[in-house]
Amino acid sequence: MFVPSAVMKTKRFKMTISYHGGGFVGWQRQKTGLSIQEVIEQVLEKIEGVKVPIYAAGRTDSGVHALGQVCHTELKRNYPAEKYQLAINANLKPHAIAVIEMEPVAMDFHARFSAKQRDYCYRLLNRPAPPVLERGLVWHQPRPLDDNAMAKAAHYLLGQHDFSSFRASMCQAHSPIKTLNLAEVKKKGDEIELHFSARSFLHHQVRNMVGSLVDIGLGKIPPEAIKKILAAKNRNAAGITAPAFGLCLMAVKY
Amino acid sequence: MFVPSAVMKTKRFKMTISYHGGGFVGWQRQKTGLSIQEVIEQVLEKIEGVKVPIYAAGRTDSGVHALGQVCHTELKRNYPAEKYQLAINANLKPHAIAVIEMEPVAMDFHARFSAKQRDYCYRLLNRPAPPVLERGLVWHQPRPLDDNAMAKAAHYLLGQHDFSSFRASMCQAHSPIKTLNLAEVKKKGDEIELHFSARSFLHHQVRNMVGSLVDIGLGKIPPEAIKKILAAKNRNAAGITAPAFGLCLMAVKY
Repeated sequence: MFVPSAVMKTKRFKMTISYHGGGFVGWQRQKTGLSIQEVIEQVLEKIEGVKVPIYAAGRTDSGVHALGQVCHTELKRNYPAEKYQLAINANLKPHAIAVIEMEPVAMDFHARFSAKQRDYCYRLLNRPAPPVLERGLVWHQPRPLDDNAMAKAAHYLLGQHDFSSFRASMCQAHSPIKTLNLAEVKKKGDEIELHFSARSFLHHQVRNMVGSLVDIGLGKIPPEAIKKILAAKNRNAAGITAPAFGLCLMAVKY
Repeated sequence: MFVPSAVMKTKRFKMTISYHGGGFVGWQRQKTGLSIQEVIEQVLEKIEGVKVPIYAAGRTDSGVHALGQVCHTELKRNYPAEKYQLAINANLKPHAIAVIEMEPVAMDFHARFSAKQRDYCYRLLNRPAPPVLERGLVWHQPRPLDDNAMAKAAHYLLGQHDFSSFRASMCQAHSPIKTLNLAEVKKKGDEIELHFSARSFLHHQVRNMVGSLVDIGLGKIPPEAIKKILAAKNRNAAGITAPAFGLCLMAVKY
């Protein structure tokens, strides 16, 4: 059924999206390859018959996964959210992207600007043997990590700081000052999960913090070194950028 | 360094193995395709310079995963377990198979016959949206499952029963009587995990029990129907065989 879009009133929807970052150039459209945004917008265009832009809470980097990315969009066909969700998911196959929740929202809801908190999790596999079932979702650390030292260091990151030492050079944020509400280290069998929550993050901030926390877990530097790294306000003071595939955007809170 | 095997004394090792069952014909060697056993035996032959048979606790079916399969083998080079483990894992790449633990054991240890308990987990993803990060590891159930009804039904499976109704026609076990020590239903967010433990299982027993438990979760039959299905001692009385990719051999206890 084709109805000219002019006669239909658009409705705003909030979509909670899960994706496997492997094989994508990241959330945002790029000329260099396929993005999650492009795949979803193509599917929406197919369903709506017109181009439909979507706006995400955060532009995850190439390779980063999501369990709960959030985006909003305006749709013209008068389908209930469940019907849209089913149609979108059917058309997203075989991509490793799915809309796990969809609901109508007020026209002033904005996935990016209304967001109050982003929750990220970085997974480390800490055992001599390489990952198998969790391959592509964890950063393998074959040498033993001291998770207590990492937890102590993570505690120093909590609260408001100038995070310049953990900021990518291409970061476009106005200020390097951010407030971490959660920086937690959880040991779960062979895995160590690093949980971080904040209203917003600098570019590569989580992966850069993980790089230094792993140095601390390996005993290369003591937990207290995090304080000096923060104080340096210099990217060269911190450790490497942890690989993208260990990172997952868990949830966005409004 | 090549040392003729005749001059070396063999040592028995217990290997705990994780694998992704996708793409394999199952644990056991088959003429129809690549098995996990064949891959590991080829690696051991490369390291030892002679053919080395391995013996597993259980012959998992094609597509079934393992976090803690156990096998034993006898090796002639006098390497410590850690060195063998590293060498085996390095040679297992790029297959999704890894030795996660390796230790020397007494010569009378037998991975299959010494085993006291096998622990299996079957994962269901219960939401309208298809799996993404957990793709290939869960059985997708888009309609809501009543996990309380499933838990009630699982309870009827506990203990010693004639499990003929959940036995594959090609099962080679001497008796259909088995004892379930654990039959548990755990809801974890969008997932429902079904945990089963027993000294041993009939062929397809777990997947066949899961098929009927899903029928109960969907409300097709009541929880009490499990009692009638058991009493029928007839495979036709039960539900379908759940797909292999949702099943994982978690651990073997000795």
